[in-house]
Amino acid sequence: KTNLSMVKDVKAETNSSAASKVIEPHEHLNQKPIPIKINRLGEHEVNVEMTAQITDIEISKGEMYKAWTFNGEAPGPVIVVNQGDKIYFTMKNMDPSIPHSMDMHAVHTAPSKNFSNVMPDQTGSFSYPADNPGVFMYHCGTKPVLAHIANGMHGTIIVKPKDGYPTDSDVDREFVIVQNEWYKYNDMDDMTNGVPKYVVFSTKALKDGDMNTNGTVGALVDHPLLAKVGDKVRFYVMNVGPNEVSSFHVVGTLFDDVYLDGNPANHLEGMQTVMLPASGGAVVEFTVTEEDSYPIVTHQFNHATKGAVGALKVTKD
Amino acid sequence: KTNLSMVKDVKAETNSSAASKVIEPHEHLNQKPIPIKINRLGEHEVNVEMTAQITDIEISKGEMYKAWTFNGEAPGPVIVVNQGDKIYFTMKNMDPSIPHSMDMHAVHTAPSKNFSNVMPDQTGSFSYPADNPGVFMYHCGTKPVLAHIANGMHGTIIVKPKDGYPTDSDVDREFVIVQNEWYKYNDMDDMTNGVPKYVVFSTKALKDGDMNTNGTVGALVDHPLLAKVGDKVRFYVMNVGPNEVSSFHVVGTLFDDVYLDGNPANHLEGMQTVMLPASGGAVVEFTVTEEDSYPIVTHQFNHATKGAVGALKVTKD
Amino acid sequence: KTNLSMVKDVKAETNSSAASKVIEPHEHLNQKPIPIKINRLGEHEVNVEMTAQITDIEISKGEMYKAWTFNGEAPGPVIVVNQGDKIYFTMKNMDPSIPHSMDMHAVHTAPSKNFSNVMPDQTGSFSYPADNPGVFMYHCGTKPVLAHIANGMHGTIIVKPKDGYPTDSDVDREFVIVQNEWYKYNDMDDMTNGVPKYVVFSTKALKDGDMNTNGTVGALVDHPLLAKVGDKVRFYVMNVGPNEVSSFHVVGTLFDDVYLDGNPANHLEGMQTVMLPASGGAVVEFTVTEEDSYPIVTHQFNHATKGAVGALKVTKD
Ligand SMILES: [Cu+2]
Ligand SMILES: [Cu+2]
Ligand SMILES: [Cu+2]
Ligand SMILES: [Cu+2]
Ligand SMILES: [Cu+2]
Ligand SMILES: [Cu+2]
Ligand code: NA
Ligand code: NA
Ligand code: NA
Ligand code: NA
Ligand code: NA
Ligand code: NA
Ligand SMILES: [Zn+2]
Ligand SMILES: [Zn+2]
Ligand SMILES: [Zn+2]
Ligand SMILES: [Zn+2]
Ligand SMILES: [Zn+2]
Ligand SMILES: [Zn+2]
Ligand SMILES: [Zn+2]
Ligand SMILES: [Zn+2]
Ligand SMILES: [Zn+2]
Repeated sequence: KTNLSMVKDVKAETNSSAASKVIEPHEHLNQKPIPIKINRLGEHEVNVEMTAQITDIEISKGEMYKAWTFNGEAPGPVIVVNQGDKIYFTMKNMDPSIPHSMDMHAVHTAPSKNFSNVMPDQTGSFSYPADNPGVFMYHCGTKPVLAHIANGMHGTIIVKPKDGYPTDSDVDREFVIVQNEWYKYNDMDDMTNGVPKYVVFSTKALKDGDMNTNGTVGALVDHPLLAKVGDKVRFYVMNVGPNEVSSFHVVGTLFDDVYLDGNPANHLEGMQTVMLPASGGAVVEFTVTEEDSYPIVTHQFNHATKGAVGALKVTKD
Repeated sequence: KTNLSMVKDVKAETNSSAASKVIEPHEHLNQKPIPIKINRLGEHEVNVEMTAQITDIEISKGEMYKAWTFNGEAPGPVIVVNQGDKIYFTMKNMDPSIPHSMDMHAVHTAPSKNFSNVMPDQTGSFSYPADNPGVFMYHCGTKPVLAHIANGMHGTIIVKPKDGYPTDSDVDREFVIVQNEWYKYNDMDDMTNGVPKYVVFSTKALKDGDMNTNGTVGALVDHPLLAKVGDKVRFYVMNVGPNEVSSFHVVGTLFDDVYLDGNPANHLEGMQTVMLPASGGAVVEFTVTEEDSYPIVTHQFNHATKGAVGALKVTKD
Repeated sequence: KTNLSMVKDVKAETNSSAASKVIEPHEHLNQKPIPIKINRLGEHEVNVEMTAQITDIEISKGEMYKAWTFNGEAPGPVIVVNQGDKIYFTMKNMDPSIPHSMDMHAVHTAPSKNFSNVMPDQTGSFSYPADNPGVFMYHCGTKPVLAHIANGMHGTIIVKPKDGYPTDSDVDREFVIVQNEWYKYNDMDDMTNGVPKYVVFSTKALKDGDMNTNGTVGALVDHPLLAKVGDKVRFYVMNVGPNEVSSFHVVGTLFDDVYLDGNPANHLEGMQTVMLPASGGAVVEFTVTEEDSYPIVTHQFNHATKGAVGALKVTKD
């Protein structure tokens, strides 16, 4: 099969000592972001259509990264479904040279079948149940997985709990925050043995009109999240890594309610900082009682120094 | 404002390639530790007076570090208040050249107002409620935050739960243990991209006569914590980082009761090792049934090897 | 005492700049694995006999490591006892040159007495109660501890809860999975300041006929764990480090039930990934509903890239 031998060549190239260069077929490629499509097919069935594509992302002021992405975003767009939904997932691989795939941590499925490679210029369709509530990572699972994640192919899927969270009625605003790392361009050695060049936060739109950013240095400082005095704010937090854990914290407040991996059963209270493994999620909630800008950080301050800082701006009205 | 332009210059200096040198205005400075003042103003009001000051600390045998400190200690002195207290906090900045500030993870407040910079030779006053029980980090929040924490400006504030811990009546002794890292002197590059030179434990006096140490290699080996056979021992543990997580463990026992971030609601049982994020706290409790010296470590043994070892000495009477 | 001066010499050698060499007395040594002996003495008493020995282990294809081991395995064999058992432990130190010891995180005891050094060619006997249920680390506690753990002297002891786990009746198969790191051979500097060369998984036999592997790259890929469609699978997971934390994950499923450190009281649900400190354990359970090979990883993907990948192969019958 020609496709498979191509895969092999590309994989070799990815691992070569020249790995920190853009691979040849991507050189003149900058595919415009294609919006994700999510539409409900039935009471318990949802259709999700995404792309794998090569898109330039300005990861820090003036520094472009020819990212491997879902839908031209890194992290990819957030997916929201209901607990009990069956997901019908389609991925169009617009990358002319490398297969990509989709591994969702939210679902039970046979990975070799439903997380399998979609070849260049092909479209793949898969389906699986999302029967567990929570905040989950999704990512490309094509080998070498580290390169596909580190180059940008990661995101968050939220599965809303059937019976909600006990604190649902108190929540006034909610946001998605994703933490990811950037390394030297497509450099497997740096990804494997180095330290991150940048560690960043992004937010993803939960509904039309919400802010939606890439994981770039300063994204949430230049354009803070917004709330009002007295609001109970909920963050769906996800640390996609690929390598580092996160010590998630908001300055000036503490988390009255925390649900580890977003499961209502995993309830903690009054936490200053939430420990997130690589590919760990949480729902964190807190009430803001005064006007101000509240910094959002990972309290692993070497990482905050490398970019993992954002802000929640709280105004009177 | 002259103060502000000075801040800018100093900040530049902190980030320069000569960053591992003592900054000029600190060169001949070694300010004698000034004790913290904590006094109750009313049933639910407490006054806390601290200094920011430059003080030499022997972080390892024969190795002095001109630390940026609270009250001449690194970590700073422990603060203990009651849940529901309003804290009236005053900081006298004795540093002639750099602003400092105080960010307490225990409180809800507007950070730009109440965690704001106190200029050199100035005194700042702030107040905020401590309505959540637990073991919290405090630290200087002046930019670059990583440098202010790594140079020594961190500590622990305990907010005693209104209704206590379910295990209060069993506890015979209690201690504070803080883990912190040291890097090359005031070297932002080492702090950001390097590995810690030392990782250390200290203890802080909860009451008059209690041992009170700095975060120095061997502090709690040379002068172990003391208990009696049969005691249930409580540690208020805090990992201030600035960068590393901690795998807190005591050899020869296990933690019968653990309260994550010190909140009574976050109860775990029978833990061998407690995972602490950077700026994570815990109450851990265990009973010592035999005379001996029980080593205290982070079980990330590269860090234990760099100094994060202490001892609890248990005697018959 | 001649033994003690020898200890001192060997310790110096371990820390020397030539540390990455096999120490002289081990040079021509490759001691054949001696099976562990576990036999019950009474309703609440169990006898455990182990060796400390020097044994070649192929940690990656074609790469031998003259490991410091328990019973010729690294990780050492799994020990299983019942909550409430008293353990009578005997260690025969077959290493001609270095003392070794046994620190079990499962027990309450005086470490200087019961975790003490057994001199070369000596046998030591110790006893202690295992009164807490869970999944615990054991390891050699001889100084420098980091070298003894990193060179291979670590393993898992399971203490079965008196009243079982609430999910016991649903579980169809169970396995032990241990994560450990390998560094440059016996190189204290690399162990202390470097990054792991390999991060690996192994499985340990819970009963006769179970697979039992060393912590070698690909061990659980070449020989996957085996289950049947519809099984609820339980993993007893242990991260022995010595330095790194783990973000334990299984692709294609999520953990319906998690017990932190294996204590039934520490129950979490619906977790995608479990955060394990260095020397942290967990019981994780999940149901596999389709035929396939399910990859097991730490989702810190630099570590997965270095070997921490396994597979659970699920077949129809
Ligand atoms: Cu991909
Ligand atoms: Cu902080
Ligand atoms: Cu400061
Ligand atoms: Cu240990
Ligand atoms: Cu040993
Ligand atoms: Cu994954
Ligand atoms: Na509200
Ligand atoms: Na805070
Ligand atoms: Na007692
Ligand atoms: Na222990
Ligand atoms: Na079953
Ligand atoms: Na999964
Ligand atoms: Zn803070
Ligand atoms: Zn609150
Ligand atoms: Zn709850
Ligand atoms: Zn131990
Ligand atoms: Zn106990
Ligand atoms: Zn409880
Ligand atoms: Zn996965
Ligand atoms: Zn399930
Ligand atoms: Zn339960």
